[in-house]
Amino acid sequence: MQLALQLAKQTEGQTTPNPMVGAVVVNNGRIVGMGAHLKQGEGHAEVIALKMAGDQAKNSTIYVTLEPCSHFGKTPPCADLIIKSGIKRVVVATLDPNPKVSGKGIEKLKLAGLTVDVGIAEKEAIELNAVFFHYILTGMPFVTLKAATTLDGKLATVTGESQWITGEEAREDAHYYRHSHDSILVGIGTVLADNPSLTTRLKGGGINPIRIILDRNLRTPLSSKLINDKQSQTWIFTNKAVKESDIQKFEMRGVEVFNIGTDLKTVLKALAEKGVTSILVEGGAEVHGEFIKHHLVQQVVSYISPKLFGGANAPTFSGGAGIESLSNTVLLQIKTVEKLGPDIKLVSEVLEG
Amino acid sequence: MQLALQLAKQTEGQTTPNPMVGAVVVNNGRIVGMGAHLKQGEGHAEVIALKMAGDQAKNSTIYVTLEPCSHFGKTPPCADLIIKSGIKRVVVATLDPNPKVSGKGIEKLKLAGLTVDVGIAEKEAIELNAVFFHYILTGMPFVTLKAATTLDGKLATVTGESQWITGEEAREDAHYYRHSHDSILVGIGTVLADNPSLTTRLKGGGINPIRIILDRNLRTPLSSKLINDKQSQTWIFTNKAVKESDIQKFEMRGVEVFNIGTDLKTVLKALAEKGVTSILVEGGAEVHGEFIKHHLVQQVVSYISPKLFGGANAPTFSGGAGIESLSNTVLLQIKTVEKLGPDIKLVSEVLEG
Repeated sequence: MQLALQLAKQTEGQTTPNPMVGAVVVNNGRIVGMGAHLKQGEGHAEVIALKMAGDQAKNSTIYVTLEPCSHFGKTPPCADLIIKSGIKRVVVATLDPNPKVSGKGIEKLKLAGLTVDVGIAEKEAIELNAVFFHYILTGMPFVTLKAATTLDGKLATVTGESQWITGEEAREDAHYYRHSHDSILVGIGTVLADNPSLTTRLKGGGINPIRIILDRNLRTPLSSKLINDKQSQTWIFTNKAVKESDIQKFEMRGVEVFNIGTDLKTVLKALAEKGVTSILVEGGAEVHGEFIKHHLVQQVVSYISPKLFGGANAPTFSGGAGIESLSNTVLLQIKTVEKLGPDIKLVSEVLEG
Repeated sequence: MQLALQLAKQTEGQTTPNPMVGAVVVNNGRIVGMGAHLKQGEGHAEVIALKMAGDQAKNSTIYVTLEPCSHFGKTPPCADLIIKSGIKRVVVATLDPNPKVSGKGIEKLKLAGLTVDVGIAEKEAIELNAVFFHYILTGMPFVTLKAATTLDGKLATVTGESQWITGEEAREDAHYYRHSHDSILVGIGTVLADNPSLTTRLKGGGINPIRIILDRNLRTPLSSKLINDKQSQTWIFTNKAVKESDIQKFEMRGVEVFNIGTDLKTVLKALAEKGVTSILVEGGAEVHGEFIKHHLVQQVVSYISPKLFGGANAPTFSGGAGIESLSNTVLLQIKTVEKLGPDIKLVSEVLEG
């Protein structure tokens, strides 16, 4: 099962909106098939592993990190294929989170007389697909706040200097999150201040996220990189009052404009409906503050650089109205602490309920 | 030498303004004497260790973490005692930082025919006495900024709620720094907001630091804990314009008022002259900002709690005018990262030069 989880883990960022899944077929102590789901529309992990196993699947055990599907989607049901292949025992890490299908794959396998064990390495399997589970269970995208600050919590000096706060290792590491999230979201302030491209710049390449701008009054310059570089899709959320003729200027350039307002819940629901399962929020402070205020954060990735800027007017991690009472703050748990060059990286996850 | 350093380390916070020093006497592979300097005016480490060794000091080796003194201070010179005791070899971790006496102890020992080795575990010995070395070499107190913030760098919510941001482990740990520093410094804002006692509340007891308030216009309430609890001395720095009759009200209560202004360099020099070798700065944001702006920080102790408050008006780690240019920021190095309950503790030291 550990190997199946590792196979799945390798596909992070490329299976959306599907989960990462890995499968391993073992015949009499020998691995005869391995596979992972690589991309929406392509073969599921079980299909690939069973294909590799061929005739040796007979009387084998298959380890799979998520319950095999029992329904026709973009591909035929895996449960049927497993039964047909002659597999004797199926070991499943965790059930499908979707209440409509959860348990049905297992049921089908059991009815066909196969031995089924569920719950092996379940915690790891759920953590692996935290984004997918959140998306399926809440109908909202999984949100990661990312920020690089000084020891005294500043994003820039009072004059706005911010390049660079963290070292090369931390900056490279941050790009991994652009690869692993479906989308990246910034406020219009960040677009006007930095003219960013918001692409994934990893040494080994990577997938560019959909770029989302919260831009109430459609102030994004037509000349900005996000409108012209064609590196990825750019979506802008504006108020209803924005003029149709202005919107057309963006649409002519291939940019989608959603004039449904910039209320976060509305925006996130619209994104979920369009199949966006995860959002990396890269500021600025006002945008972070809004996500915090409305408890719309699942994960925080903080890079902390050993510098001090001072300054009451220096931009900080979060702004906005803020949460008033300690009893209503966003509570998280620090999952990992890592040293990256001179800096520290903390990954924290919101505590449930 | 490691044992000598450990002995010295145990005395942290109680030897001021003297350094921590440990000594071990070894005769033919057997420890015959151990000692540490415990308190100003009491025996130096070498004296205690040699007394324990008695006649067995003859032909022994003494390991000492700091160069033995060669001059008459509050106690007679240790170099003379070492020579008289019949010690054959002296191993010294590092020379005395005071340019007036540095090397003189060693010279005296060598002239008397003893073998002297200097520089064993020198780095550890200098780190151990970072406060003492800084104080002697610069004539200014060693300054530690301490703050407990959320993941988004807030000291409190927008409404000022701050009890408690960090967990019990972090709060207990923070009291250790009150014990190990000669003084604790806060701004008048903190006094008015929290009416703190600023005492050391460790389970095993501890030494209370001198409490220093930066209070330009002498607004500290006569009813506040710092004025009445007699737990430690309280010193207030004010502007020259403050009325003599107002000052007297404080002096009647045993509080010292220094009406020399609140310019930080002036205050720190005055404190150094009064024998204060170290200051723990506990905020608020304005005070932290001033220390940062003037590059008067040697160490930062940060406790980070996995919470998010948001809020443009929530108090942050540092305020004030701030440093404008990235090339002029306070650069530090993260020395230790520790998990304390749900929180993270970072200790960072200013990079030299």
